[in-house]
Amino acid sequence: MPEHAPPAHLPSVSRRGAVAPFQVMSILDTVARMRAAGRDVVNLCVGEPSQGAPAPVRAALARALTEDVPMGYSEAFGLRALRERLAGLYADRYGLDVDPGRIALTTGSSGAFLLTFLAAFDAGDRVALARPGYPAYRTILSSLGCEVVELDCGPEQRFQPTPELLDAAAADGPLKGLVLASPANPTGTMVDADQLAALARWCADHGTRLVSDEIYHGITADGRVGDCARVRDPSAVVISSFSKYWGMTGWRLGWVVLPDDLVASVDALAGNYALCPPVPAMHAALAAFEPGSVAAAEEAVRAHARAREVALAAVPGLGWVDVAPADGAFYLYAGIGPVLGRHGDSRRWCAALLEEQGVALTPGVDFDRVHGHQTVRLSLAAGADPVGRALERVAAFQTAAGPAPARG
Amino acid sequence: MPEHAPPAHLPSVSRRGAVAPFQVMSILDTVARMRAAGRDVVNLCVGEPSQGAPAPVRAALARALTEDVPMGYSEAFGLRALRERLAGLYADRYGLDVDPGRIALTTGSSGAFLLTFLAAFDAGDRVALARPGYPAYRTILSSLGCEVVELDCGPEQRFQPTPELLDAAAADGPLKGLVLASPANPTGTMVDADQLAALARWCADHGTRLVSDEIYHGITADGRVGDCARVRDPSAVVISSFSKYWGMTGWRLGWVVLPDDLVASVDALAGNYALCPPVPAMHAALAAFEPGSVAAAEEAVRAHARAREVALAAVPGLGWVDVAPADGAFYLYAGIGPVLGRHGDSRRWCAALLEEQGVALTPGVDFDRVHGHQTVRLSLAAGADPVGRALERVAAFQTAAGPAPARG
Repeated sequence: MPEHAPPAHLPSVSRRGAVAPFQVMSILDTVARMRAAGRDVVNLCVGEPSQGAPAPVRAALARALTEDVPMGYSEAFGLRALRERLAGLYADRYGLDVDPGRIALTTGSSGAFLLTFLAAFDAGDRVALARPGYPAYRTILSSLGCEVVELDCGPEQRFQPTPELLDAAAADGPLKGLVLASPANPTGTMVDADQLAALARWCADHGTRLVSDEIYHGITADGRVGDCARVRDPSAVVISSFSKYWGMTGWRLGWVVLPDDLVASVDALAGNYALCPPVPAMHAALAAFEPGSVAAAEEAVRAHARAREVALAAVPGLGWVDVAPADGAFYLYAGIGPVLGRHGDSRRWCAALLEEQGVALTPGVDFDRVHGHQTVRLSLAAGADPVGRALERVAAFQTAAGPAPARG
Repeated sequence: MPEHAPPAHLPSVSRRGAVAPFQVMSILDTVARMRAAGRDVVNLCVGEPSQGAPAPVRAALARALTEDVPMGYSEAFGLRALRERLAGLYADRYGLDVDPGRIALTTGSSGAFLLTFLAAFDAGDRVALARPGYPAYRTILSSLGCEVVELDCGPEQRFQPTPELLDAAAADGPLKGLVLASPANPTGTMVDADQLAALARWCADHGTRLVSDEIYHGITADGRVGDCARVRDPSAVVISSFSKYWGMTGWRLGWVVLPDDLVASVDALAGNYALCPPVPAMHAALAAFEPGSVAAAEEAVRAHARAREVALAAVPGLGWVDVAPADGAFYLYAGIGPVLGRHGDSRRWCAALLEEQGVALTPGVDFDRVHGHQTVRLSLAAGADPVGRALERVAAFQTAAGPAPARG
C-alpha cells in the first residue's frame, strides 16, 4: 500500500450515529461462542420465525430464475402484480378497498418506516410511541431529527398507548405522530377494535399522524387477524411485511399502505432512497397467497400458539410479575424484579442465566431504558419444546441463585 | 367500510418529503404510453445494464433455494463468506488489504449512502458534491438535514471536483464531507490517480470525510478499473455495488468499505435501519466471482464500449457542445444549447424528440438544476445498435426543427 501522509484534521463522526448497540448482540455473541465450544444452548432471543419461507415461495423464485425472468429495477413502489395481490389481502382480511396505487412495496418494514417517517415528519417534530417498544422506531426517528416522546405503557395499559397517556404527552407540545404496534414487540399485546377507534379518534382530533405497525397481523393466539388502522383512520399509514407471518425475514420485503397526501412524497423519496424493493423477493412473494403458502404460515401460527401455552403455564411458577398477555406475535415479556437476586439487573441476570444454564433471553433494556432492567423478553418462535426446556432451566437457575420465589 | 368522522385537524406532511420528482419519470411514462400504442421507441434513459445478472449468479440462488439454504436474518453487515470474497476483490483489483470486518453489505449502494451519511454527518453539516451529479446524493443529504454544497464542475474540470473548487466552497464554512463519483453519473468522467491523490490530500488537510462512489468501477472504455479512494485515504468511505458491473440492479445489493472510526456506528445503524441486506441476493452474489460471471460482466463492458464508440462518432455531427469524455460508466452527457431552437430547454426538447422521433433521452435538469436546461444524458447501456439508431433520429429531429447546425 502507498504511504499516507498523516491528515491535518481527522474527519468527524456524527453524533446521531452514536446509537447504543442492542444488549442482545452481546448475548448472541456469547451464544455463538458457547455453541462453538460444544455447549447446548436454547436461544430464545431471536425475533424471527424458524420455519423459513413457504415452499411455494421458494419454488416460485427458483422457477423465475431458471426461466430468465428479468430482475432489473422495478417501479419505485414495486411490481404491480404483487401490489394487486396485497390489495386483495386487504379486501379479504379487513373488508377494505385499497387502491394498489397507494401500496408501496419496501425493503422490509424497515424501509417503510424510514420512508414514512421522512414523508410525514420534519426534524423537531414530536412523535409518540409506547415504551416498552421496538427500539428501531426510536433510533430511526431520533437520527432523522425527530423528538421521540415515549409513553410509559405499563401492565395497567396492557403496554399499549391510551388517549390519557397521549393527553399527558401532548401537554408538553403537539404530537405530530403516534407509532402504534399491535400485536406489539416485545409484549405481544394487541389493542382491540374499540381501543384502536379511540386512538384513531384522538389522532384525528389532534392532527396527529397514526403510523400503525401491523407486521404481526395474523399471528395471534385466538385466531384473530388484528384490526387494521385504515378501517378507523383514512389518514393512517399502515406498515406490514412478509417477514413474520410468512417467515421471510432475510428476504427484506415489506409494504406500506399510504394515505393520499403521502403517496407522491413517498414515491419520490423511494426513488432516491431505495430505487426499488428487492426484485427477486417480489417474484418469490407472488406465491405467498397460494394455498400451500398460507397453510405453511398457519401451521407456524399454531406452533407459536403452542409455545405460548407452554410459556404461560410455566411462568407463574417462576415468580415473575406483570406478565404481558401475549395476545399475538411470538413474544412473552415479563418482570423479573422479584427473582433478580444478586444479579441486580436484567442484563446481568440474562448473562448469568446463559452462562450457567445455556438459555439465552433478551434483557428488557433493549425495549425499555427506564424499566427494562427488571424485565426480559422470550421469543416463542423457537417452538414449544425449546421454550419448555428453557423455562425448566430458568427454574433451576433461579433455585440455584437463592431462595425459591413464592409459587402461585 | 365504517364511517369516519371528519378529523378536527389533518395530520401534516413533512417539508423534507417535498422532493421534486425526476423529469425522466414523465419521459418514461410517455415511453410506456407510446409503446402501448404500438410506437417504436428507442429508450436511452435507463441507467441500468441490459444483460441482467450473470447465469452462474442466477443458478447459485436457484440451487440455494432448491437445497433449502436458510434465508433468515444475517448479521447486520451480511454474510461473512461474501464479505471475504469482496476483500479478495480489493486485493485483486487494487492491491489493498481490507479486513472483511470493515466491509458491510448493504441494500444496494443506496443503503450504503444512507448509513454512511448518517454515521458521518450531522444535521447542519456542509457536504460538497459535483454538479452535475447523481441526484439521490443531494436528496438523501438534504432530507437528513445536511447542507448540500454543489461544486460547479464544468467541462474545464472534466465535470469533477478540484481542490480549487473545494477551496472556494470552504470559504463559506468548513466542509464535513465530499462525495466523489468516478466514473461519474451522468458524465462518465473519471479522476485519475493524481487527481484522486490531490482531492484526498485536500480532504485530509481540512478534516473532510471523502465518500467515494465506485459503483461504476470496472466499466471503462480503456480497460482501467478505476482508482480506489482507500489507496489514498484510509479515512475514506468507499461505496460500491453489484448493480452495474454485474448487471444486478433489481437485486439491491451493494457494499461499503468503512474506515475504523465508522464501523461501530454503521453496524448499530444498519441493525436499526435495515436489520440485514437481502439474503437471497447475497447467496446469488457468492457466484459473482466465478469465471463465468466475470466473463459475462466483461462482455457487457465491451458492449458499452462499442456503444460509446458509436455515440462519440455521431455526436460531433449533431452540433452538440461540451461533450463529456465518457471515460467510464455507460453515459454520454452533452450540451445541446446550440440546437435547442424553439424548444427553449432540454425538458421540452426531449419531450419533442420523443414525440416526433420516438427517442427517449434524459433532460440534464435531473442532474444539474443550474445548467441542465441545456444538457442531455444518453444511456449507452441499450447497446451500439439502438444508440446508433437513436442518434440518426436525433439528426433527423434537429434537421426538421430548423436550420441544420454547423457540422464539424
